[in-house]
Amino acid sequence: MQKTQPALIAFDADDTLWDNEIYFETAKDRFKHLLAPDCDPTWTERELDETEMRNLSHFGYGIKGFTLSMIETALDLTQGAVTGQQIRQILDYGKEMLQMPIEPLPHVEEVLAHLSRTCPLMLLTKGDLFDQEAKIARSGLADHFTHIEIVSEKNEETYAALLQRHGIQPADFCMVGNSLKSDILPVVALGGHAVYVPYYTTWLHERVEPSEAERQQYHQIAHLGELPRLLAEQFASAVQN
Amino acid sequence: MQKTQPALIAFDADDTLWDNEIYFETAKDRFKHLLAPDCDPTWTERELDETEMRNLSHFGYGIKGFTLSMIETALDLTQGAVTGQQIRQILDYGKEMLQMPIEPLPHVEEVLAHLSRTCPLMLLTKGDLFDQEAKIARSGLADHFTHIEIVSEKNEETYAALLQRHGIQPADFCMVGNSLKSDILPVVALGGHAVYVPYYTTWLHERVEPSEAERQQYHQIAHLGELPRLLAEQFASAVQN
Repeated sequence: MQKTQPALIAFDADDTLWDNEIYFETAKDRFKHLLAPDCDPTWTERELDETEMRNLSHFGYGIKGFTLSMIETALDLTQGAVTGQQIRQILDYGKEMLQMPIEPLPHVEEVLAHLSRTCPLMLLTKGDLFDQEAKIARSGLADHFTHIEIVSEKNEETYAALLQRHGIQPADFCMVGNSLKSDILPVVALGGHAVYVPYYTTWLHERVEPSEAERQQYHQIAHLGELPRLLAEQFASAVQN
Repeated sequence: MQKTQPALIAFDADDTLWDNEIYFETAKDRFKHLLAPDCDPTWTERELDETEMRNLSHFGYGIKGFTLSMIETALDLTQGAVTGQQIRQILDYGKEMLQMPIEPLPHVEEVLAHLSRTCPLMLLTKGDLFDQEAKIARSGLADHFTHIEIVSEKNEETYAALLQRHGIQPADFCMVGNSLKSDILPVVALGGHAVYVPYYTTWLHERVEPSEAERQQYHQIAHLGELPRLLAEQFASAVQN
């Protein structure tokens, strides 16, 4: 029998439950400004993006890798003429990011409190283990979650392993997040439910263009406040059919 | 009834299954040499150690944080006069460390193969999620383990949560590792079994001096090849008692 709610609802964290990308954007703006006497900001941004992408396979996701990529970009763009003071500024941008405030986005707290009364919730985030744990602790949201998992990548393989580990069928699983690439498309490919909550900006690396067929397979909401109603409608209609 | 073997044997990874600290030591030597024209190597080492310890609460464990700490130390020691070329050298030390070869230490492969036939094995390591996953993959040892867990810290709380999650009593758990601080003392404090396999060097942050009472509560072996016999003796004698 089709269930009236998912057996597990998993939430992405960065830019789904709290702001994240905005802090990277701010650091990037400061970095461009720092190098502006020597380098055109558009060019600096392009170089930094390229360095970041090239370093992903060494560094993985996270602020420490981003900080190292800023330093490398500054060296490249100034042909090594970057000053010690500039390098120290970049280190400081990184350290400030590591202490970014973690404030839940609108609707997040009440929706998690509401849903957690009837359904196990999972926080499922990718990135730097140490940073992510620190952010979860600072968010004050940890108690709403039955499970917290931090993974290095969110792709079909990750989701399949996770569902197997928890003994859950894809049709009983619902993933909620702001990244089509990491939260939505791999889950619908496995036959799971996915709810896309766009954030105002998406990191270059996460940008994908879904096909029309893929668009049919997930739901989109404007903010997390719309999630309980969507879940109720979707699972109620599934029962009727 | 006392079981004839543990319900779960967990292994630390770095410096227990493969070399790790030696790569940090090598990078540190190269760093001291790099700054030697301006700074006394003994002083450089002390400054770097202090910077690392101070940054642990920002960065956690791992190569990326260590690299950022080397850069910060170079800035501090040269009053910002470090050159771009020196900074690039430090970045390169970090990138080389991220690709360090992962060769199992002597006896590791055969002991894991042997024990895994009769007992579930766990790889339990702390540090940077991305680095650790990459190292486990490169080690070729992953298939011997039923569980792989990467945590940000190994203390009593971590072990208690882990045992609860796996439904295992401390008396049925055995931890094997090279760090008294992270692998041995928290486990014996919970009433678990712990086997200490010293590595030739211990990172400053992990050095502790166990009390005489604590020394009574764990076993020490010279290399992993001695583990099967120790386990057989310990659990056999427990059954007899």
